[in-house]
Amino acid sequence: MKSSGSANGRSAGEAVFDWVDRHARHRRDNGLRRVVEPRGSAEDVLDLASNDYLGFARHPAVVEAAAAAAHRWGTGSTGSRLVTGTTELHTTLEDELAGLYGAEAALVFSSGYTANLALVTTLTGADSTIVSDGGNHASLIDGCRLSRARVRVVPHADPGAVRNALEGSSPPHVVLSESVFSVDGDTAPLDELLAACREHGAALLVDDAHGLGVLGDGAGAFTAFGLGGAPDVLATATLSKALGAQGGAVLGPRRVVDHVAQAARTFVFDTGLAPPAAAAALAGVRLLREDPRRARRVQEVAHGLHAALTERGVPAGSPGAAVLGIPAGSPDTAVTWARSCLERGVRVGCFRPPSVPDGESRLRLTARADLEERDIQRVVRVLTAGG
Amino acid sequence: MKSSGSANGRSAGEAVFDWVDRHARHRRDNGLRRVVEPRGSAEDVLDLASNDYLGFARHPAVVEAAAAAAHRWGTGSTGSRLVTGTTELHTTLEDELAGLYGAEAALVFSSGYTANLALVTTLTGADSTIVSDGGNHASLIDGCRLSRARVRVVPHADPGAVRNALEGSSPPHVVLSESVFSVDGDTAPLDELLAACREHGAALLVDDAHGLGVLGDGAGAFTAFGLGGAPDVLATATLSKALGAQGGAVLGPRRVVDHVAQAARTFVFDTGLAPPAAAAALAGVRLLREDPRRARRVQEVAHGLHAALTERGVPAGSPGAAVLGIPAGSPDTAVTWARSCLERGVRVGCFRPPSVPDGESRLRLTARADLEERDIQRVVRVLTAGG
Repeated sequence: MKSSGSANGRSAGEAVFDWVDRHARHRRDNGLRRVVEPRGSAEDVLDLASNDYLGFARHPAVVEAAAAAAHRWGTGSTGSRLVTGTTELHTTLEDELAGLYGAEAALVFSSGYTANLALVTTLTGADSTIVSDGGNHASLIDGCRLSRARVRVVPHADPGAVRNALEGSSPPHVVLSESVFSVDGDTAPLDELLAACREHGAALLVDDAHGLGVLGDGAGAFTAFGLGGAPDVLATATLSKALGAQGGAVLGPRRVVDHVAQAARTFVFDTGLAPPAAAAALAGVRLLREDPRRARRVQEVAHGLHAALTERGVPAGSPGAAVLGIPAGSPDTAVTWARSCLERGVRVGCFRPPSVPDGESRLRLTARADLEERDIQRVVRVLTAGG
Repeated sequence: MKSSGSANGRSAGEAVFDWVDRHARHRRDNGLRRVVEPRGSAEDVLDLASNDYLGFARHPAVVEAAAAAAHRWGTGSTGSRLVTGTTELHTTLEDELAGLYGAEAALVFSSGYTANLALVTTLTGADSTIVSDGGNHASLIDGCRLSRARVRVVPHADPGAVRNALEGSSPPHVVLSESVFSVDGDTAPLDELLAACREHGAALLVDDAHGLGVLGDGAGAFTAFGLGGAPDVLATATLSKALGAQGGAVLGPRRVVDHVAQAARTFVFDTGLAPPAAAAALAGVRLLREDPRRARRVQEVAHGLHAALTERGVPAGSPGAAVLGIPAGSPDTAVTWARSCLERGVRVGCFRPPSVPDGESRLRLTARADLEERDIQRVVRVLTAGG
């Protein structure tokens, strides 16, 4: 088969991608086909699917900051952060984000995904061992794959397994975990993980994507777990969830963050974050600092939802922050359940393989600071209504 | 060494990252330390370092579109493109971008880096061979590393070497190249690469980051090389260079782009592009379509710069689009040269290892549509002025 040719009447090259049709059939036959469904700008739907926990993506101060930045700084950063892509807006955001975390330094990326790739690839190498939680996010797993390090995947949220893995390796080694896991919403035992790291001279790398804005009165996992000044702990944060913008950041000791800036391919070879997103994130950081009540309210709503759901027999997982996962059986069952919620005016997330760590589909609810008791009751009614 | 302990008076964990200091010393000793220098919002500098070739990042129509989108759609997309992160703005951008390329479909990502990771990882697998140009961008190389495919790196811009590599492999195999190479600005022989692909049943994957907005009267490499409807050719574009925004896109046959949307981890597990960036890119696409003169002007300016520089003995590479590379010796020499240009009011890019394919440092100039003849003369004077 050296030529796709024009045999059987097909034009040159036509057959090269025939193999994608097999994948499409497989997805269709197994209820795994995803549909990209655009939403309008003014939907009459109760949103429990987005990560806009605090409503910052539409907060007037955040919106105004983004619009003003487009005018003042332009709509794009125009180059790599090391060429023309760093404005004073970027460095101000980094300073204030570091301040919020109590970290020495922060480095902003165009997405949380690229921040995680940077974290893992620059702080490990061919001589390293990465002890990685089995429930970690795809971006952390891709970081491990790119790192050339030896990767030991340990059972989810199991400090004993982490300790065993560290005993079986030697420095340089790192422990890699999310603070709040993205699908089930449970919190990692960061205290115990840090203790295990300290016993074995390992670094602790924490993805705080779902912690920022909720844990630690909104300041994230470093505040909640007292990790701010630790010389051996790095975090990534995302600017696209609680902060309502786009992008990600690496936070930690200055010398280490500087190393990431020098060495990370996704920093050196990517265009810097667009100024409107940087300005929106900065406005979000300032809102977080000035009023911790929103973060507390998100946790109240999450616990309220959990209590009301479990009372009605819905097996929602206990939320560590804003995210609640609900086991939902087969992919088809999950899709049908989520669709029936949407038809009743409540949008929930629907996670199927390969987005779920153990293969069982989930509905995923995210609490929002602006939900009231009657909203919670409505969500429970809709989720428990018969098909 | 099982404990970083508090021996020699250092606090717990303090020594874990001591190794980064060695790297910092190495960079300092070899002229390889990068400095993140923020720019102000109103600099009095002639910019030949950014990728804002057409000035769209500050074009009133683009700026207004971004500001309006922040108000109408919010500052962030609030979730994965498959959950809440797809708005009608995203699908409109995809439709019009596909139209500009003459492609059946387009899929928008939060950065060009993540679009390239998606392109390579979803269209190759463990049974594939990737024939990759030796000058390809870091994001394409990382895509190869993540792909699990066999990778054959061939000499830069050498269709004979590509042909040989394809003869030595069997389908599924793909040829991977930039259209316009990012540091030296030369154009790939896409006609010959496509012919080689067709002879061997291979797919052609083209990174058009530096082609869009310049080649093909602004419509990019597909128009310039007549690849629009090809069933066996995919491209990535970036929204952060000529379009003045942020993000990237995969373009090509609908069934293949749909496969990318289903399978790409950087699509499924990343927050969608922020609405202000999507709106800015859409405004940029519309400007490109309505007036091809800007794109032609960029090429005129690039050729004018090349002619004027070579006339004065500066060995600038011949520009295929907007980018000109100038060999600049050692890292220290390059940095000194770029700094002296900036002191004289002209900002140029400075590329040192590992950003240069062959290890020799470069100055990198990007032509802009708004440069006039006297600007070109000024650039040449500044570049040839004695240190």
